[in-house]
Amino acid sequence: MTALALSLEDRIADRPGDFRVLTGDRPTGPLHLGHYFGTLRNRVRLQRAGVDLFVIVADYQVLTDRDVAERLGETVDGLILDYLAVGLDPDRATIFTHSAVPALNQLLLPFLSLVSVPELQRNPTVKDEIAHSRQRAVSGLMFTYPVHQAADILFCKGNLVPVGRDQLPHVEVTRTVARRFNERYGPVFPVPEALLGVAPLLLGTDGTKMSKSRGNAIAISASADETARLIRAAKTDADRRITYDPVARPGVSGLVQLAALCLDRDLHDVAAEIGDAGAAALKRTVTDAANEFLAPMRARRAAYAREPGLIREVLRAGNARANVVAERTLGEVREAMGTRY
Amino acid sequence: MTALALSLEDRIADRPGDFRVLTGDRPTGPLHLGHYFGTLRNRVRLQRAGVDLFVIVADYQVLTDRDVAERLGETVDGLILDYLAVGLDPDRATIFTHSAVPALNQLLLPFLSLVSVPELQRNPTVKDEIAHSRQRAVSGLMFTYPVHQAADILFCKGNLVPVGRDQLPHVEVTRTVARRFNERYGPVFPVPEALLGVAPLLLGTDGTKMSKSRGNAIAISASADETARLIRAAKTDADRRITYDPVARPGVSGLVQLAALCLDRDLHDVAAEIGDAGAAALKRTVTDAANEFLAPMRARRAAYAREPGLIREVLRAGNARANVVAERTLGEVREAMGTRY
Repeated sequence: MTALALSLEDRIADRPGDFRVLTGDRPTGPLHLGHYFGTLRNRVRLQRAGVDLFVIVADYQVLTDRDVAERLGETVDGLILDYLAVGLDPDRATIFTHSAVPALNQLLLPFLSLVSVPELQRNPTVKDEIAHSRQRAVSGLMFTYPVHQAADILFCKGNLVPVGRDQLPHVEVTRTVARRFNERYGPVFPVPEALLGVAPLLLGTDGTKMSKSRGNAIAISASADETARLIRAAKTDADRRITYDPVARPGVSGLVQLAALCLDRDLHDVAAEIGDAGAAALKRTVTDAANEFLAPMRARRAAYAREPGLIREVLRAGNARANVVAERTLGEVREAMGTRY
Repeated sequence: MTALALSLEDRIADRPGDFRVLTGDRPTGPLHLGHYFGTLRNRVRLQRAGVDLFVIVADYQVLTDRDVAERLGETVDGLILDYLAVGLDPDRATIFTHSAVPALNQLLLPFLSLVSVPELQRNPTVKDEIAHSRQRAVSGLMFTYPVHQAADILFCKGNLVPVGRDQLPHVEVTRTVARRFNERYGPVFPVPEALLGVAPLLLGTDGTKMSKSRGNAIAISASADETARLIRAAKTDADRRITYDPVARPGVSGLVQLAALCLDRDLHDVAAEIGDAGAAALKRTVTDAANEFLAPMRARRAAYAREPGLIREVLRAGNARANVVAERTLGEVREAMGTRY
């Protein structure tokens, strides 16, 4: 997989226009530095390279989360501002909401016929979702999730899907669906390639994975003061000497990692430079680094937030483009399947 | 259930305009007398009573049947002609194809979130489909079938679903989905009632259930000669005296039933009238009765088949109306779910 990923990067650099990427987020809350270094940075890189980006706001995937569903509109608005803040450009990337594109969702029907129930049950990510589900029983939506993802990717003929290693099985379902559709009805879909991210697992201010629900995440939209407060409250340890040792010293190491990423410097250099100055000095370094790193994004975000109607217009344009693309693909699907009467 | 069904019939007779029916067929081949006496007759009756009829050609539900999929267009055309022949009126009924209405299919997404995997697994009709499936493994499409049916019924706010007893569990899923959606997001959908058919199990010319795949079915579109040949080849028995006794004499009884239905007479009267004249006389009676009964339908069918562009126009108009209705419902769904941004 590594060899493939490398040569894929070369191909992207050579002919970015040959690639269309589908990526996106569930609108569950503000994006934070974990998202930034995990995926957003890579999206902006691909966009700058000239790859055609489709960014889906997967609003149907949060239906079962009651807390989110109740303030969905607000969360989606915040997500769009976060996108603009980090540098996604709605004139180049197609930013759209899942629920606004019926022709995309219709692909679910033929695709469901190409996947068996045992194949769905075997999918490790679905198994995992099932294990971690807050619901009493798994919903039909969750059970069929890999097929929804196939529709999300294939509706725009996405041929490149940036993923973490844990999402590879999902992309495998998409590849299977594309291959089976093409074999059965004729060549309509690309068989997309997974672009494996090399992003580190970003630790939050408590030394565990950065996540909104753990309260350890530095949101892109947070103020400098909020950021400082969060870092001030971070768990460190009694050893004054700052080192990077994520197993033995997760708290300190999380802060070192954050500073290193924001400063774009080597982890151990950052740690060595602070040396015996202790946790307080480390926290000052991290606070300054994070706030300085985020300052231009936050300024852009604030400016965009003041533009009346901007979010509506981004979604209107993105949804319109996504609908055109989806209708065209659905037309080809109808042609191939013989369902034009 | 019987008491409910009776009072429901009264309510339909009193206020037919309050009812919208969703009914339809998988396009698997020509409709025959089994369909006619089982369901088509009832649809025409409801249409004449003033009920608003939506008739779905469930083309996505035949995807897994390779033989059908290869000549789908032809089969759909034949189905439309059969509908017109029996008296469905495209100016009053909305005849449409499942694959042509994306907004209908999009309802699948929120609906899947309202049903759990154990609930889908428990559905007896799905269990049955699974047991009788020619596929090696059940597809995701078949597994989620009751949810598709919920979308088919609810997209047009159908509140009346004519069914046989074996389909009651499906309607129960639709009722559950409607109830849960309304509870969770606000009142959008009616909770539809099942209109239990009292149609007899129609026997074919071999004394088993009339079915295209058994070659024992008298198609609406068959010629008088084909009908005569089929009945001539019917299995009877050595007893010259004609009686209606479906357990001991399925072959003879199937023919008696067919004659009685076509003549709109009592089964036993028909049998007694033929008496000792034997199987040959019975077959003459059945042939004359079936051909006479079908003659006006066949004449209409032939006339419609000669009208160039008629089928296209029926589907164009039906699909257009179905799309308007589906878009309106999807708009209400978005409003209720808070997915208008």
